[in-house]
Amino acid sequence: MPSFNERLESYCRKKGTRVCVGLDLDRDRLPQGVSHTKDGMASFLAEVIEATEPFAAAYKPNVAFYEAMGIDGMRLLETLVAHVHAKTEAPVILDAKRGDVGHTAKHYAEALFGRFAADAVTVSPYMGWDAVAPFTEDPAKGVFVLTRTSNPSAGDLQDLEVGRRPLYLHVADLVKEWNGKGNVGVVAGATGPEEMAKVRKTVGAGVPFLVPGVGAQGGDPGAAARAAADAEGGAFIVNAGRSILFASEGRDYAKAAASAAEALRDRMRTAIGKL
Amino acid sequence: MPSFNERLESYCRKKGTRVCVGLDLDRDRLPQGVSHTKDGMASFLAEVIEATEPFAAAYKPNVAFYEAMGIDGMRLLETLVAHVHAKTEAPVILDAKRGDVGHTAKHYAEALFGRFAADAVTVSPYMGWDAVAPFTEDPAKGVFVLTRTSNPSAGDLQDLEVGRRPLYLHVADLVKEWNGKGNVGVVAGATGPEEMAKVRKTVGAGVPFLVPGVGAQGGDPGAAARAAADAEGGAFIVNAGRSILFASEGRDYAKAAASAAEALRDRMRTAIGKL
Repeated sequence: MPSFNERLESYCRKKGTRVCVGLDLDRDRLPQGVSHTKDGMASFLAEVIEATEPFAAAYKPNVAFYEAMGIDGMRLLETLVAHVHAKTEAPVILDAKRGDVGHTAKHYAEALFGRFAADAVTVSPYMGWDAVAPFTEDPAKGVFVLTRTSNPSAGDLQDLEVGRRPLYLHVADLVKEWNGKGNVGVVAGATGPEEMAKVRKTVGAGVPFLVPGVGAQGGDPGAAARAAADAEGGAFIVNAGRSILFASEGRDYAKAAASAAEALRDRMRTAIGKL
Repeated sequence: MPSFNERLESYCRKKGTRVCVGLDLDRDRLPQGVSHTKDGMASFLAEVIEATEPFAAAYKPNVAFYEAMGIDGMRLLETLVAHVHAKTEAPVILDAKRGDVGHTAKHYAEALFGRFAADAVTVSPYMGWDAVAPFTEDPAKGVFVLTRTSNPSAGDLQDLEVGRRPLYLHVADLVKEWNGKGNVGVVAGATGPEEMAKVRKTVGAGVPFLVPGVGAQGGDPGAAARAAADAEGGAFIVNAGRSILFASEGRDYAKAAASAAEALRDRMRTAIGKL
């Protein structure tokens, strides 16, 4: 059985794409004609998933958008993950950014991998190894650890100097340590390609990067791909959320989402030669 | 309308207690005779809540334990929060340790304060201010930011030296900045009373401490109370989870939970004179 990192990489190579389709269902942005009911939103997501499948290396719903809709939202999340698994071979990364004491993290792992059928999750490193360990137990399940994130105040903690190096590079050191089973990667934001390149240098080849921050957040996909890629031009995926999911405000949303995903793939391909 | 911090403090003073009752529903530890159905677990929690009410300054369910039960678990969480609000005046702190970009954190705030009716939440500082800000918007809702946590590998990041001071004290500086509306506090673990005292010195008086790590995790409640209390002997609550909720394996669990909560209150009272 391949580890999560191996599985992700071979899927990217096979399909020639490194686009991660972000499925952050913001109800205020639903295209015209999409019903705001659970079934209406499930159909919308299903259409976007099927239309983007040829260009998608992974799908990444952020759990917050579904929790905000309460129980109905959590059911919608279950439905959408099942739909990705039924219609594609792409992994589902549940973006949850969890981080809690080991005893408790075990229950989050059970929730995200077990109940919500994720292939991978995102986690916060603030509480150290025992908050991350329970997610890494099964080598087939992936764990992306936050290093340098894409938000405006990312630097509040992450850029603090610890012995002449920023904190986020110490986290990158820890990721290297924590990757004993070949299933740990990093989250590094496209808004900081220089920081991303330093993270790559620290973790070495093969550790996958999940790169948010292109599209609506302003990061350049070509620069992001160049900074994230390892020596063999691989081991990364670039996430675009709003710019794919809400590519059109009209009824052509599925076609528009596919075009946006294809264009993002092509920009990355141009930037680094092949994907 | 008082801020969350003011409300918590006046409730503690009025009731003469600083015990936070942790409601981490681990199904493997349910006492004999408690049915593992949703209704069975809801009744168990309701009985513990009612029995501990005289000694409880707050109730703190950790969301992970409910998420691990999927949709049924989330319904159980709704039921238990409603029960606390119906039967007590104590605030509910949802221990969720969330932390995400502002745009997304807003949805978590909606989920936890709106859908799940929390009075306060716990959050991670790793992504900086914009990951915390959406939770602070309503002064009546509280936000406890992780500083020095109680788990064995807490020091992996939190103890790293940033300009001769550990990272967790830089977080304490940020908490002071972030507390403009009087509704931000800290999480500081009872397993490190010295670290806790440094956090108190940094944030000053009035900023509430939520202190996990007594009971099963081994921290001493008296030492924790002395280290956490501000100059006026207040502004803190000490959480005990398993040692109250699962105080008995038999049918006397509600009475045993009440006795454990009372004993914890008394140990703190002895340690610092009054509560």
